[in-house]
Amino acid sequence: MHSAPPEELVLRPIGLVRSPHRDPEATPIQPLFAQGCPATLELLPSLEEGLQDIEGFSHLILIYHLHRSEPGPLIVKPFMDPNPHGIFATRFPSRPNPIGLSIVRLAGRRGPVLDLLDVDILDGTPVLDIKPFFPRFDSPEGAKGGWNDQVAEGDIEARGRRYKK
Amino acid sequence: MHSAPPEELVLRPIGLVRSPHRDPEATPIQPLFAQGCPATLELLPSLEEGLQDIEGFSHLILIYHLHRSEPGPLIVKPFMDPNPHGIFATRFPSRPNPIGLSIVRLAGRRGPVLDLLDVDILDGTPVLDIKPFFPRFDSPEGAKGGWNDQVAEGDIEARGRRYKK
Repeated sequence: MHSAPPEELVLRPIGLVRSPHRDPEATPIQPLFAQGCPATLELLPSLEEGLQDIEGFSHLILIYHLHRSEPGPLIVKPFMDPNPHGIFATRFPSRPNPIGLSIVRLAGRRGPVLDLLDVDILDGTPVLDIKPFFPRFDSPEGAKGGWNDQVAEGDIEARGRRYKK
Repeated sequence: MHSAPPEELVLRPIGLVRSPHRDPEATPIQPLFAQGCPATLELLPSLEEGLQDIEGFSHLILIYHLHRSEPGPLIVKPFMDPNPHGIFATRFPSRPNPIGLSIVRLAGRRGPVLDLLDVDILDGTPVLDIKPFFPRFDSPEGAKGGWNDQVAEGDIEARGRRYKK
């Protein structure tokens, strides 16, 4: 990069996830493997107005702080594959910036509290942003999933489904 | 929230986007309206190893700092709809935490530089994370898109497509 060094960005959580996942080792790897798993997102009450009309969406993209991850190497073995890959070709939690992303199901809203399903997020996780999932824009057709497409369905499920074990 | 106040999170950019979009007013609203629009992501050379095997993915989820957005109200009128909605029911850039998200097409890689297509991101945008798009996990079936589903296809395109005008 030839421009001035980019600046630091300071973020403050907008809320917290409350989920049954208290042990990172037993937390599902993806929402697909957490189907039906309930959780809540407790938004800061001062931000409640920002949820207006969110009820019309079936899915939300949550961006959160991977607050229990620690820095790690740039080459990792993801949970779903025994082969190593670059960190940016995986969703592995030990990332240069500890940002997590999950697409979860929105079941309902009680004031500043969102009731969620299919949640693969640790209890107490600080949430940084909530974005609506737009089916029109967020489902590219014919997408190829690299190494993840090569892992057999049964293997990926055995490695990813760690809820209710 | 009943626990201790969540802590600040300090992030450092991992790279920069170079795109033809220099004017926020003329930048496409979503990758769907930036089809074919080329850009590059210049990763910090020290992180290049983290890109290993990324070439197998057709789409990437970019998480970035909306570095030119300013704080705004919790109720906004998004670009694609004349009606107001809560900020968390939109992708509007003036958010409590200025985090942007785009699903872009990966066209190739040259060392630490990724060649991208369908890019709706401003030139000079600091990138915070790169995640592979997993078709198996990131395309929920039967998703409902709230107000966004109600906007007619022609209207949404006229409002969103601002590239090559």
